[in-house]
Amino acid sequence: MCFYDADGETLQLRDVGERSIIKKLGEIIGTDAIADDCALLDIGKSYFVLLTTDTVSKRTHIPDGATPWQIGYYACAVNLSDIAAKGGFPVGLLFATSYPPDSELEVVLEITRGLADCANIYGTSVIGGDTKEGCDITITGIAVGKVKKTMLMRRKGAMPGDVLYTTGTVGRGGTAMVKLLNNTDTQIATRELLEIEPRITLARQIARTGCVTSAMDTSDGLASALYQLAEINDVGFQVEWEENNFPLYKDAVRVSRAFNIPLTDFIFYGGDYEVVFTVRGEVHQEFEKKCRRLHLPVTRIGTVTNKKGVVLLKDGRISSIPNSGYEHFSATHTLPVLKK
Amino acid sequence: MCFYDADGETLQLRDVGERSIIKKLGEIIGTDAIADDCALLDIGKSYFVLLTTDTVSKRTHIPDGATPWQIGYYACAVNLSDIAAKGGFPVGLLFATSYPPDSELEVVLEITRGLADCANIYGTSVIGGDTKEGCDITITGIAVGKVKKTMLMRRKGAMPGDVLYTTGTVGRGGTAMVKLLNNTDTQIATRELLEIEPRITLARQIARTGCVTSAMDTSDGLASALYQLAEINDVGFQVEWEENNFPLYKDAVRVSRAFNIPLTDFIFYGGDYEVVFTVRGEVHQEFEKKCRRLHLPVTRIGTVTNKKGVVLLKDGRISSIPNSGYEHFSATHTLPVLKK
Repeated sequence: MCFYDADGETLQLRDVGERSIIKKLGEIIGTDAIADDCALLDIGKSYFVLLTTDTVSKRTHIPDGATPWQIGYYACAVNLSDIAAKGGFPVGLLFATSYPPDSELEVVLEITRGLADCANIYGTSVIGGDTKEGCDITITGIAVGKVKKTMLMRRKGAMPGDVLYTTGTVGRGGTAMVKLLNNTDTQIATRELLEIEPRITLARQIARTGCVTSAMDTSDGLASALYQLAEINDVGFQVEWEENNFPLYKDAVRVSRAFNIPLTDFIFYGGDYEVVFTVRGEVHQEFEKKCRRLHLPVTRIGTVTNKKGVVLLKDGRISSIPNSGYEHFSATHTLPVLKK
Repeated sequence: MCFYDADGETLQLRDVGERSIIKKLGEIIGTDAIADDCALLDIGKSYFVLLTTDTVSKRTHIPDGATPWQIGYYACAVNLSDIAAKGGFPVGLLFATSYPPDSELEVVLEITRGLADCANIYGTSVIGGDTKEGCDITITGIAVGKVKKTMLMRRKGAMPGDVLYTTGTVGRGGTAMVKLLNNTDTQIATRELLEIEPRITLARQIARTGCVTSAMDTSDGLASALYQLAEINDVGFQVEWEENNFPLYKDAVRVSRAFNIPLTDFIFYGGDYEVVFTVRGEVHQEFEKKCRRLHLPVTRIGTVTNKKGVVLLKDGRISSIPNSGYEHFSATHTLPVLKK
């Protein structure tokens, strides 16, 4: 059997898009785990083992000015971010790397130092791996984590009436990408994009409150995360944009003015690596009190609704948020700002 | 700091070779786990969790005539082989795959069916993964296994006086490669190379005897495996080639005659995916009795010595076995047969 499009042409991946491919693959494999941040192994009595894998390739993900150390750091951090989104802590990392044979040895060693340093900063270590020839520098990380069964945060669980929160800020990734596209402050932008801080400790503090109903990381952007959570939970989201209260990344306003980009566009960009999560409506005030007491950088940004779709409430008006954000393979993943 | 060769040129990976690179990376990471088949996690009371990763890329590893299903099957099986070498059983697999955007969807689905079918045949399943764009079809498998702490087979442990064994046969991979190089029986050869049978059950039966002192799989060939075991254990190996007793792959003799290749060359080829292991000298007869009773396809092929190096004892004469076999990045990995 072959897949064809309407004109009888054989379908290629670029005709389909990443999330649709992943859905088809999940049907073959017989699991929906492939669509979650982590796979779960029920090995111990009180803990789940978390497993996640994420690949960084130089051509696709890395700005030209990045140092090899930054590439390694980033390839490690993106995997830790998936462990964080589950409320887990890392117990080890493996890296399967591919390098072209003409790669400089020192570059490979610096990338490896970046991997090891990032693991070390987050209290874990590299416990194995594999190095092969390839046509690009490609680093597939595998993070292994543990989470108390009672502390596990899943993607599924949000209900209408729940309150929507994010850790940290929205727009760090977008701000950096706009700078890079406009060839300004490229060193700072590269640092903002690659030297991310997986929310391991913060997410565990949030998970410990016992109030969270669903969570995922915003590696593909806030809009994309909300669309995915909406589909999994069969709910909708209303993002409530209060001008002085929305947790925009500190440099976003300046960049927005300098390059004439609507502030709200920053919710479409990936690269934030925050955790977006929902809290049961009845306990959200208690939850916020706990957060204030512990000085947790967590902000309410909306509510879960029973209407399909993701909308933005701003200045009293509701508008639809398009389901866009970075998607691999797709020819249509252009971000709003790139169309200008 | 930069690495330079004697002429002051910057060193590239192809100047160094895979095993030397892995050693340098291990120094940075601060572990020697990277050189073993699997990483171990001491999570439960009586079991270790085994983790291993192996990457298959179409350009480097796959013969032209291979079907997408075979590519998937192989990418899964090579990872299970590492779990087997430890005496473990698989509990789940993840796959991080990269595809060029112009890949046909049906090819991707068939590869995925191959992955899932192989996992299924060996009693496990795919529990997660990641799909990205890349310049080649690349499949990084991650196998998770479990092994009773008392049944773990390590690479380290061989002592002079131990007896050397292999499961199955030697030369399946080499026979297939010679056929492919000579463009004959290519379909059969492709099957021999890719539809390998990880020794999960057999290796566990061997591990259960409690007689094994060290083990590893022969994915890079018997000679390469013995050189690696020799270095780790600070011992030597004498391979004893008894004409009618050496467990050569069934088609090796015919291929050897047809293409005028010395039979002993087959120990240099990779792709056998058997388990080579050592047994304490004092218990080796008892071990062999157990194997006969259980009809295990296991053959004695030599002994562990206290002399450095790997030698071949054949027709009463001892000759040195060169440390050659497939090594990534290395410009000098030409196999003996290719030099003819």
